[in-house]
Amino acid sequence: MQASRRELIKGIGAGAALAGAMGAPIAFAQPSAPSQPSTSERTMIIDCHGHYTTAPRQLQAYRDRQIAGLKDPALMPAQDTMVISDDELRASVASQLRFQRERGTDVSIFSPRAAGMGHHIGNAAVSLEWSQVCNELIHRICTLYPQNFIGVCQLPQSPGVAPANCLGELERCVKEYGFVGCNLNPDPSGGYWTDPPLTDRWWYPVYEKLAELDVPAMVHVSASANPNFHGTGAHYLAADTTAFMQFLTSDLFKDFPTLRMIIPHGGGAVPYHWGRYRGLAQDMKRPPLSELLLTNVYFDTCVYHRPGMELLLKVVPADNILFASEMVGAVGGIDPFTLNYSDDTKKYIDAIPWLSEADRRKIFEDNARKVYRLTQLPAAR
Amino acid sequence: MQASRRELIKGIGAGAALAGAMGAPIAFAQPSAPSQPSTSERTMIIDCHGHYTTAPRQLQAYRDRQIAGLKDPALMPAQDTMVISDDELRASVASQLRFQRERGTDVSIFSPRAAGMGHHIGNAAVSLEWSQVCNELIHRICTLYPQNFIGVCQLPQSPGVAPANCLGELERCVKEYGFVGCNLNPDPSGGYWTDPPLTDRWWYPVYEKLAELDVPAMVHVSASANPNFHGTGAHYLAADTTAFMQFLTSDLFKDFPTLRMIIPHGGGAVPYHWGRYRGLAQDMKRPPLSELLLTNVYFDTCVYHRPGMELLLKVVPADNILFASEMVGAVGGIDPFTLNYSDDTKKYIDAIPWLSEADRRKIFEDNARKVYRLTQLPAAR
Repeated sequence: MQASRRELIKGIGAGAALAGAMGAPIAFAQPSAPSQPSTSERTMIIDCHGHYTTAPRQLQAYRDRQIAGLKDPALMPAQDTMVISDDELRASVASQLRFQRERGTDVSIFSPRAAGMGHHIGNAAVSLEWSQVCNELIHRICTLYPQNFIGVCQLPQSPGVAPANCLGELERCVKEYGFVGCNLNPDPSGGYWTDPPLTDRWWYPVYEKLAELDVPAMVHVSASANPNFHGTGAHYLAADTTAFMQFLTSDLFKDFPTLRMIIPHGGGAVPYHWGRYRGLAQDMKRPPLSELLLTNVYFDTCVYHRPGMELLLKVVPADNILFASEMVGAVGGIDPFTLNYSDDTKKYIDAIPWLSEADRRKIFEDNARKVYRLTQLPAAR
Repeated sequence: MQASRRELIKGIGAGAALAGAMGAPIAFAQPSAPSQPSTSERTMIIDCHGHYTTAPRQLQAYRDRQIAGLKDPALMPAQDTMVISDDELRASVASQLRFQRERGTDVSIFSPRAAGMGHHIGNAAVSLEWSQVCNELIHRICTLYPQNFIGVCQLPQSPGVAPANCLGELERCVKEYGFVGCNLNPDPSGGYWTDPPLTDRWWYPVYEKLAELDVPAMVHVSASANPNFHGTGAHYLAADTTAFMQFLTSDLFKDFPTLRMIIPHGGGAVPYHWGRYRGLAQDMKRPPLSELLLTNVYFDTCVYHRPGMELLLKVVPADNILFASEMVGAVGGIDPFTLNYSDDTKKYIDAIPWLSEADRRKIFEDNARKVYRLTQLPAAR
């Protein structure tokens, strides 16, 4: 068995030596100058939402063969036919590492490309093969760059198939790879929403396993197969909003008090409509939102303009916000209004004058440490 | 034929006398005191998003019989079996009128209950009967209270049925009832999104008719039949977001340059994610959002807390925002933080210190006049 991710994280105190020995570039590994704040003073910047959107072309070629194999089983590829060298992997994340350096991100919580999960394609067996292939690449990236990436897995979901079929891959990724969470797709059908809501007992085996492993899930749909929904412009945000409302109307977190769910993309429409949700909860005699959120529901900061970011930070308690950029991701360009990358979300947060240092630290570091149980991650240097 | 709504609006200069003659209470009909601003100075408050959520129980009883008739045609009721007296109609809108008075709304653009449209129930014939019944009630309310309500119709949509089947009812409501627009459901399936996107030619006959009649459509789904989607907490907002992204990715408004679409509920998630949409448009080589919006896409102000309202007014041009409250609607309670009704949206706008008087007037009055072509509506008194 390979060294687990947890072991690597444990060993990260000697991270420079370890990564150096593996031939990996070392970001942020310069020895601190005496004028730098001490390790315990500088806030570590943890980006909880990064996807491997820059994988070498072999990955998509493998997927294409897999899809061809659905029609003609003779074409179905074996997993070991997808060969990518370590050098190719390094080259593939060069842009990711450059963005980390340029933007001041210390480490990204890193998962397979969300749109690529494609749970609606094929069947559960195909989904399992594909998830294993994708998760292994994440593990290899995390092993090559243990200071820069912490893994989160894709699950082998399939529409109409009980999510209990995902437990093996989830456990494997956490126990063997040291991954710290998973992406959970609330709509494996890809935009037709044919499976039960996340609060249905249909999903409970996943939550039992998450509780047992003590890792969180990010609620994240994949590509839309429905022509009504643009992926990053509609399906993602609609799913985030939908999941929150499912949580609001159920007692899921009474059944799983330690379950942590991250709703990405700034929580979809939720913070913008905070008053609506507060009012709906009240009308429905549900607990106040703060009670619902508390230790179970978190929003990331993937909101690509300052007014939106300010709104998020104004209405959602700082304890429930995790820094994220979704880079290299949904929106790749430079905003002509700010001349910064739209998805350089740290800049929006840094520009907010009324955000207290304590809240800033929660958002950038402490909450991620808490939610993902990053107890082994050393302090920022 | 009854006097059309347009004729009534024409005659509204003598509104007090007219309404008085019809036995209707007259809101805001007090003669102006000398200290009041002149009619042309006071901004009229036009609420563009009101639903008849307070209909007498006979309406739902009729609907129940209709639904029973789907299983047993012998039970299918005739339209004329639903009898509601004018006095019952007056009583049914007493709360609506009281809220108008208390909140300072002059007139509401008023349509059948959105959740009640239920396009996924039955078939096109049933949907037509039901739409006719609902629209007629709106017409009667508008006739009873010509100063308080202006009608907008429900369309007899049905999943899988070409929307061209709606043209007759749309034309009837505009020409006979003087209605000024319609609600267009982008997902008649009730949460399974099985029909083509709004930008597909499937919908073009509706747009041709809207252009011919020169009336706008509010994009508004009905109840969710999908257990994943809570209606007012998820399906509505997801549909708003989805429709906007459909518009962003298509050339619909090149084909229909005069088409006006109102996206309700503050535009769903869109203003909160304005940077995402700006970036997506740029990445996709689409025109800037301002160009897309311009004279075709409008957001209402159904956002139930001040930070959300401020965001909307900050990022969306004032020319593209129409005042609305969705009352009596989605959220009925009093916000314990403000001690005001959550859906008293005028209060949030009034509290924004940096909103210019010119923009305020656009949002409360001028834009609605322009979008709904309320050329016959007299100035505020």
